[in-house]
This record gives sequence, structure tokens and C-alpha cells, in this order.
Amino acid sequence: MTDPNQEDRRPLAFGSVEFPNTKAKKTHVGIPPDTVNAVIEALGTGQDQRVRELMAPLHFADAADLLEFLSADGRRQLLEIAHDVLEPEFYAELDETVRDEAVDIIGLDAVAETVAELDIDDAVEFVEELEAYEKKHVLDAIPAADRTLIEQGLSYPEDSAGRLMQCDVMTVPEFWSVGETIDYMRTNAARTDTELTNIFYDIVVVDPKHKPIGAIPLSMLLQSKRPVLVTKIMHQEMRLIPVDMDQEEVAFLFRQRDLVSAPVVGSHGRLVGMITIDDVVDVIDEEAEDDILLLGGLQEDDLYAAAIDTTKSRFTWLFVNLMTAILASAVIGFFQSTIEHVVALAVLMPIVASMGGNAGTQTLTVAVRALATKELTSTNALRQIGKEFLVGGINGILFAFLMGGVAWLWFSSPKLGLVIGLAMIINMLIAGVTGAAIPIFLERKGVDPALASSVFLTTVTDVVGFFVFLGLGAMILL
Amino acid sequence: MTDPNQEDRRPLAFGSVEFPNTKAKKTHVGIPPDTVNAVIEALGTGQDQRVRELMAPLHFADAADLLEFLSADGRRQLLEIAHDVLEPEFYAELDETVRDEAVDIIGLDAVAETVAELDIDDAVEFVEELEAYEKKHVLDAIPAADRTLIEQGLSYPEDSAGRLMQCDVMTVPEFWSVGETIDYMRTNAARTDTELTNIFYDIVVVDPKHKPIGAIPLSMLLQSKRPVLVTKIMHQEMRLIPVDMDQEEVAFLFRQRDLVSAPVVGSHGRLVGMITIDDVVDVIDEEAEDDILLLGGLQEDDLYAAAIDTTKSRFTWLFVNLMTAILASAVIGFFQSTIEHVVALAVLMPIVASMGGNAGTQTLTVAVRALATKELTSTNALRQIGKEFLVGGINGILFAFLMGGVAWLWFSSPKLGLVIGLAMIINMLIAGVTGAAIPIFLERKGVDPALASSVFLTTVTDVVGFFVFLGLGAMILL
Repeated sequence: MTDPNQEDRRPLAFGSVEFPNTKAKKTHVGIPPDTVNAVIEALGTGQDQRVRELMAPLHFADAADLLEFLSADGRRQLLEIAHDVLEPEFYAELDETVRDEAVDIIGLDAVAETVAELDIDDAVEFVEELEAYEKKHVLDAIPAADRTLIEQGLSYPEDSAGRLMQCDVMTVPEFWSVGETIDYMRTNAARTDTELTNIFYDIVVVDPKHKPIGAIPLSMLLQSKRPVLVTKIMHQEMRLIPVDMDQEEVAFLFRQRDLVSAPVVGSHGRLVGMITIDDVVDVIDEEAEDDILLLGGLQEDDLYAAAIDTTKSRFTWLFVNLMTAILASAVIGFFQSTIEHVVALAVLMPIVASMGGNAGTQTLTVAVRALATKELTSTNALRQIGKEFLVGGINGILFAFLMGGVAWLWFSSPKLGLVIGLAMIINMLIAGVTGAAIPIFLERKGVDPALASSVFLTTVTDVVGFFVFLGLGAMILL
Repeated sequence: MTDPNQEDRRPLAFGSVEFPNTKAKKTHVGIPPDTVNAVIEALGTGQDQRVRELMAPLHFADAADLLEFLSADGRRQLLEIAHDVLEPEFYAELDETVRDEAVDIIGLDAVAETVAELDIDDAVEFVEELEAYEKKHVLDAIPAADRTLIEQGLSYPEDSAGRLMQCDVMTVPEFWSVGETIDYMRTNAARTDTELTNIFYDIVVVDPKHKPIGAIPLSMLLQSKRPVLVTKIMHQEMRLIPVDMDQEEVAFLFRQRDLVSAPVVGSHGRLVGMITIDDVVDVIDEEAEDDILLLGGLQEDDLYAAAIDTTKSRFTWLFVNLMTAILASAVIGFFQSTIEHVVALAVLMPIVASMGGNAGTQTLTVAVRALATKELTSTNALRQIGKEFLVGGINGILFAFLMGGVAWLWFSSPKLGLVIGLAMIINMLIAGVTGAAIPIFLERKGVDPALASSVFLTTVTDVVGFFVFLGLGAMILL
């Protein structure tokens, strides 16, 4: 495809632009800080009209970001003053915690109005997060046609393709031509005025049983002559998504195949909807976010939660960690008399545990990520564990010499150097193997490997680290 | 938009499909293990022809995944036997480490042939990773027209919009109608046969200086009548991407605005290309991956690297960690005589450090993630640090009572309980504040907060943890 002014396209495209091959430029792309500050000032000085004037022209995504930058009080104030100048999509963009707050502030009737104006997939996503009584209230207040569609969306399993898809799909029968298809789209759009804003990228060709038999990218339709049959230009190797497929699998497919949209089919292979990439991008984001948070010992993104809720949600993980730390201490307690004789062991023991923990975390991170991207499977699991054993062993030996030397010099005891060197090798070997094996094992047992891997790992590296180091100390130094 | 058989669309779409509202289904979406095993077996038994027959029908993305599942030897064998049955896009899908291997195995002439057949943006991505002499060899062997385009792509800064974009954009002048646009696309496609496979989603309306003034989604073009002017139906609030914009900012824009494609402009506001969402999905993936890896103490995804390369790349981080561990030990060393008198201090001291480290990591993870998604900025930084101080304080007090009680009972010493309780509160307060403040500070200094945050944090929580606990122990117990 190309510019109509064929001759001067290339020069126009590149001739006048010269860039030194340096680092890409970091520019400001979010909402300008000036706007945020102006809103904060207007809120602080009670200029309600000014707040409304500032918010009204903002894109809904920017308005949502702006709200999230404010304190909890500021958020309440802003919504009370300006909620009626915000577009319905504004609420679809909000973080869950903030949206819950917003629902309380604007009230369920306003929520129902908002939901009724959203696209069905956004509406489903909004409604599914509401409490049961809120859900009922909101659905009851929505016009019947929309309500039915939303309820149908909600009937699909959580996190399934059915929740992600749009139900309105442009389909054509297999005997149509390009011309008929375009004419039909024009007439239909003229009849149902609102359709024009609904953007789609592919047309699905269906058989009489409404099963998809091919898809045509719009760019291909536009570049074909009117008499050409749709079956002549359709792609047949499209991927069909079962309506109950897990959203992570959907994301994997879109990513692996660089899809922009894909037809969703029900139990009898009939077309029930279409998933487009913009919905999948959110899933990809969520997935990566979940892994990052779980590896960091968090159940959820608590940036916008009140301090007390954050404290509660983090307590559980810290409590589990306390238990494992006490277990490690019990191991140390077993060697109290050894430590009384050679206090240098107490000084050096955290080093062994810490190096094991860090080496293990490196391995664990690679394994958790590779499991998430399906790069680590039963086919190569054993090979990876073997490799990590080797890597842990080599680094263990290197650090054994390094730290052994330091300990020898520090406490003028070659034997102490030997003890810490041996302990280092053993702990780093075990850290490498368990760092790879724990996530693989958890995945097989159906547990999210990002969730619990690190607590198991540090338990192993702490317990083994202290036990081996102090045990060798008792044997060699006493 | 809707199905031509208007009457029975809804029933067809939903009537016949009933799903219990349970968990979404995990199905197998990657390459089937059977195929992988069949290839491994054929490689092992030297059936070269069978290997080629198995590989040839695979989608290039599946073929790339399959190669990556093999051991280094298996990869070499497979490429030697079957590289000529694989599509050029196969190489674009490979992980960097594996692609480097592949380049060595198939040779630079075969690489040049492959690159010449790729889309320009994929070709640029392939070539930019090659060594300087390889790059020269490959570019010299490519036909001049393609070479020029690839070199132009390479002239943009690394990780910039210019590297992501496609140069071929469908543009129309502002005085054209829908009919003229469609006719032009048809004629043009008929003239240049290959264009049909190139998929695009928007048409850009440009002024005489080739500056974009609006964009039209194809679905809108198709639903408009032929005499309508393109300026009547174009969106004007499109986002223009400067060609030197950093790819992370591009990804942020696409995500925030749910874009599918966006025009890229050069220094004088002229259109130079178009970025589509499939390229941005890769950037989003990479970004999240980088954060996960850096937080886990890794410089790169080393799943496919040889054990010796992995060992080397992980050594650096472990060495830095050793230095901080030695620093923490030096703090303990300062209190040797205290420990000799009260050996219980040695038993309990890892608990204080560990709880501080974990509480700090939770805070740090939230902060690093929020900085990456631009949810944490100068506007709300102080408020977040304040919140983390509060959260750290409350959890500190809770765990102080818990652990204080445990220590009292374990060693029958209420004073020891007091010491560990106080130390816990202080260390968790400091962990909360530094966990939030370190990434914010690094971001301001232009350092990637995911890179160095955790090493600073654990240094703080270890040093403070040991110092406060042993110091209080010396004051209160001796």
C-alpha cells in the first residue's frame, strides 16, 4: 500500500528527517502535571466550576489517571463535584479499588446509567466486580436489551474468552461477493445510525450453521474487486477460540500468532463473538503484573488502597515469612553451644544464607517467567534443572574461594575459610536445583508458581545454609 | 454491525450455548508435545527426511517454539537438516540467544536471503542484533531497495518509535471522497500484486505537506457512502507519535488510549510511518519481562544460554550481593562480645533482618510497578512514602507483639522479647519508607528503579536490622 503521490513518497517519508543514532527520547506522554496541579488547586480552594471546566475536556483515560493521582479525600471531592461531566468510559479505565470507591460516591443509579452506555464487554467487566446486591440493583435499572447481553456475558466463566469478547460480529454468508458485502455494510450502517463508532478489523465468513469458515481483513476486502467472492479472499487458517478458553491461553495465542482479532466459537462450533487485541493487551498486562506482585510477596496491587487495607493484605505473607524465619532460627538454636565457642560463626552465617537465597531467586525468576510464557515445559524441565545444578555449582566454587579467603583473613583461621567455602558450594548447588524445581513442581500440582515459590525457596536456602555452615563448623572447628 | 440474517443472530449467538459459571478451561494452545517428541525421535535416529516432513507444515511461530525446546545440540542438528524448509518469519520469532546460534549455523548468506524476505520492521529488528561485520555482510547481500529501507530503519535511535514503525502507510489527500479512496486502493492493489498480504487498519488523511490531519478506521470507511469526503468521517483526535519517542512511551500511549495503530511523524510533523499494536505488544512483553528479571537479580533472560554464559552473567549480581552481605556481617562483628554473653541474640537476629527485607520488598515491588505504569509520579510520591511509613509501623507493632511473645517464651526472657519487639518495629518502619523511597529516588536520577532497588533495600534492612537488634540487646540485656 502506498501514498497516492507515488513519486515523492519516499523522499517525504525520510528525506527531510535526520536523526543521530543515539538513545530514544523520553518525552512526557501521560497527563501533564500542570493539569493535575490546577485541579488540585481548584479542589483546595473550593472552585467547583473551575474543577468541572478542567475535567470536562479531558480524554477519559487521562481523567481516570488524574483521579488516581489524588488522595482518597481528593478523589471523593472530585467525583462529587464533577462526576456528571465524565464520560462512561472513564469508569471502565479506573483501577478496581478506585472504582469501588467511585461506585459508593456516585451511587448505584448513576452507575446503572453509566453501565448502560458502555460497550457490552466493558459493561460486563464493570458489573462483574460489583457486590451481589449492587449487581442486582444496577442490572434491574438497565434497559432489558442491554441487560440480557450483560447477563449473557456474565454467564461465561470468569477469566474466560466469553468475558473478553464482543458479541456483535460482522458476518457474511459464503456465497456473497466483495461488492455485496460492502453494500450491505453501507445500508446497514445507514439504518442503524450508531454502528459507525464500533470499530472492527475482520469480517467473518460463516456457513449456514453459523460456523466460521474464514476471515477477511478489511484491508484485503477494500483492495479486492467488487465481483470477487468472499471465499476467494478469506484466510482459512484462522485460530478459533473456544468460548470457555482461559484468558491466559487467549493471550498466548494472540501473542504467538500476532493476531489482531479472532472469532470465538461455542460448543457446536458456532460463532458467538470476536476477541480483539485491545482486550488482550489488558490481559497481558494483568498477567505480567500478577507475576511481579506475587514474586514480591503481594496478593494485589495496593497502590490505591487505604493504609489499613494494605496492612491487612500484606500481613498474611509476612506471617508466613515469620514462620519460616523462626524455623531457620530453630536450626541456629540447635548449634548454640557451637556459636558460644566460635562466635565468628554467628558473624558469618548470614552470608551463606543470603548468597543461597539470591542465587536461588535468580533461578526461580527465570523458571517462573519461562513457565508463564510456555518456554519451560515437561520437554525441557529436566535439562533446565540440570543446567541450574551446573551453574549453581560453578558459582558456588567461585564464591567459596572468594569468601573462604575473606573469612581466613578476617578471623585468621584457614579452617573457618574452609567451613564457609564448603557451606557456600553446598548451599548454592541446592539453591540452583530447588530454584528451578520448586516452580516446575508447583505448576504440575496446579498451583501458580509465582505465588508460593519464593517462600519455599528461602526456607530451603536458610535452613540448609545455617545447618550446613554451623554443622561443618561444629565438626571442623570444635 | 451485524449478521446479514438479522432475525436469528442473537439466538444463533447465544441460544444454543449454555455454560456453567465455573472456572475457565485450561486447554493446550502451544505446539503439541507429540510433535516435539516426534521431532526429537527423528533427530535421534538420524531420519533427516522425516525431520523435514515434520517441520515443513508447522506455522513459523510453532516451529520457533519447537526449536527452542531442544537442547543446544538438538537445535544445531535441526537447523542443519531443515533450515531451508522454514519460513523467513521463523527467524524473527526466535529468542535472541537462539537466533545468534542460528545465524552461526545457517551462515550469513542464508541470513541475507531470509532478511530480504522479511517485512522491513522485522528485518530491522533482526539486523540490529547482528555483530558489525555480520551486519555489513548481510546488508551488502540484500537488494538495494530493501537495503535502503533497512538502513533507514537502523538510522533511528535504538528502542525508538522509528524502529517499530512500518514505512508503508496508506495515505489520501484531504479532498478525496470515500469512493475515490476505495477505487484507488483497488487499482493500486491490482497493479502491485503483493500488497494484498500487507494488513493495515487505518487510512491517514494528509495535507499537501504530508502532515497527518486525521485517521479513518477501515470499518468506518466501509460503512460510509461513496460520495462522502474523507475529511467528514476522519478522527481528528488521533495521537501522533514522534519518530524518536522511546518505545516504552509508545507502549504507554497505546495501552492508555487502547490504540490499534498510530501515525509516526518526523521533525517537521510529516508522516513517516505507522506503528501497529502487534509491534507494541512485543514491547509491553519485553518491558514487563525486564522488570521481573531485574527484580530477580538477572540482567537478561538466560533460559537458552549455555551454562557457562549463565554463570558469568549471574556472577556480577551475586558479587554485589556478597559485598552487602559482608557489610552486614561487619555490623554483627562489632557486637561479638554481646553475642558471646547472650547467644540467643545470634539465634534470633536473622528474623529481624528477614522480616525487614520482606516488608521492604513488598513496598518496593508496588513502587517499581507503579513507576513503570506512570501511576506513581512526583504528584503522589510523598503521599505514598507516608502511607508506607504507616503500613510498616502498624505491621511492625503487630509482629513486635507476636515475635516478642515467642522470644519471651522460647528463651524465658521478657527483656529479650522487648529487644526483638523494638527492633522489629524500627526495622519494618525503615523498610517501608526506604522500599518506597529508593525506587522513586533512582527514577529521578535516571536509573531504572527495577535494576538496583533491591540491593540497596536489603543492604538497609540487613544493616539496620542487625545493628538495632544487637545494639538494643547490648543496652538492655548486658
